[in-house]
Amino acid sequence: MKQPPDHYVHGHAARELERLDYQAPKFADLFHHDTRYPPESRVLEVGCGVGAQTLILARNSPRAEFISFDLSTESLVKAQNTVFQKGLPNVVFCKADVNDLPFKPDTFDHVFVCFLLEHLPDPLLVLNNIRNLLRPGGTITIIEGDAGSVLFYPESPDANRVIECFVKLQQQMGGNPFMGRELRHLLIDAGFSDVTISPRMVYSDLSRPGHVEEVKNIFIAMIDGVGESAITRGLVDNKTWNRGIRDLHRITEQGGMICSTFFKAVGKKGSEDSP
Amino acid sequence: MKQPPDHYVHGHAARELERLDYQAPKFADLFHHDTRYPPESRVLEVGCGVGAQTLILARNSPRAEFISFDLSTESLVKAQNTVFQKGLPNVVFCKADVNDLPFKPDTFDHVFVCFLLEHLPDPLLVLNNIRNLLRPGGTITIIEGDAGSVLFYPESPDANRVIECFVKLQQQMGGNPFMGRELRHLLIDAGFSDVTISPRMVYSDLSRPGHVEEVKNIFIAMIDGVGESAITRGLVDNKTWNRGIRDLHRITEQGGMICSTFFKAVGKKGSEDSP
Repeated sequence: MKQPPDHYVHGHAARELERLDYQAPKFADLFHHDTRYPPESRVLEVGCGVGAQTLILARNSPRAEFISFDLSTESLVKAQNTVFQKGLPNVVFCKADVNDLPFKPDTFDHVFVCFLLEHLPDPLLVLNNIRNLLRPGGTITIIEGDAGSVLFYPESPDANRVIECFVKLQQQMGGNPFMGRELRHLLIDAGFSDVTISPRMVYSDLSRPGHVEEVKNIFIAMIDGVGESAITRGLVDNKTWNRGIRDLHRITEQGGMICSTFFKAVGKKGSEDSP
Repeated sequence: MKQPPDHYVHGHAARELERLDYQAPKFADLFHHDTRYPPESRVLEVGCGVGAQTLILARNSPRAEFISFDLSTESLVKAQNTVFQKGLPNVVFCKADVNDLPFKPDTFDHVFVCFLLEHLPDPLLVLNNIRNLLRPGGTITIIEGDAGSVLFYPESPDANRVIECFVKLQQQMGGNPFMGRELRHLLIDAGFSDVTISPRMVYSDLSRPGHVEEVKNIFIAMIDGVGESAITRGLVDNKTWNRGIRDLHRITEQGGMICSTFFKAVGKKGSEDSP
């Protein structure tokens, strides 16, 4: 088994795992309200990470059977603990590589993928392989963000700079921070039919409860989490980085705002398709 | 009376008036579903243009009384014809300058402003003056776009270039194409209370009815409408412009998509405020 690839821009630091745990329930309804899997259906969750989405999936579809996999043992241990602590019996975890899938064709009724394709150098290849695992008539559901959709006030050149660093870093690591807008053509190119996209916007300002904490713990923590890498790789100097992060905190003040859009895509494997 | 100022990036060509007429009913529900004015209330519509929003306002609140003004006589004639043809008796039009308002303080129960602030060199001053016209407890409703929210696929450097030209042109003419994100702080700075912002996203791809026509008649027509000015002012050469517009048309093809977010703001003039 290969080591986890270094395409994952966010890393696996404790602070990042906390961020994912904090973020998932906040967005649970926005992302998951229209995803329910029927009893007895077999669902593959690709790249489950620390299980942030697994928990929500397994709760929302308690009689579906989930197989959730990831390449990082560290993440899997955390995912397993979380899901078993909550007493959810309908998930099996396994260690697997998305580039070398250990499942037979035609095995799953549904596939769920969240915040994964943006980290992959060849998302189309992975989608083709995933389609192979689905039974004819099965569905794929994908959720991805798009860094180009982030819009905030007040603006500052330094704040823009740290976000640009985040974008560049992800690109240098082989990922695509603008994945959201690409879901439709990728699913079509991978041979899925009935492709529908629905954008899900997160908007926050001081009039909304939890604004300050959410901006700090989700958005700024995500950007600041790559600071060391960005500085080490020479994308930005220490002083500019710190000024940028300081300026981002002004979003949490009176008159500040931020919004960002995630894209949820659903596609179907045509029933006439051979696996 | 002064001539219309040249801050209006879209101009007053017949093709642009057609675009506004085409666009307004498409977005009517998205923008107006939560705006209803009570019977007998007196509503000021600031910068009504060709009456695209006036028609919807007057229909949705048939027992409210609207005073709709604009500085362009040409636009007012068109607005008046449109509204009277539809048999709506609850609108009075007048010619007035937003920088020199001919109304007494404390005159209106509500004010409605759509796609105007983005064209003004000093939107805060105008908001202060508008607030003066409201009775204590009265509300202001504003709808503005934000060019930074436009996200499309497939991308192309030339397509990005023509959009950058649109942005630069509006900035050179004294406007702010990124107005949407500023509504909250502007309303707060102008002394309004209970300020709430709600983003309204327009998303379109080939799976949605009317996709091709909407992208062509609303988005591309808006950008292409400033082509001559952009080329005349030396922002771009003719060839690049044509390539950019050609590439924008690829949004309408299989796998293409576009989304854009408008911001609706509502604020209140505190009842303790003196006019």
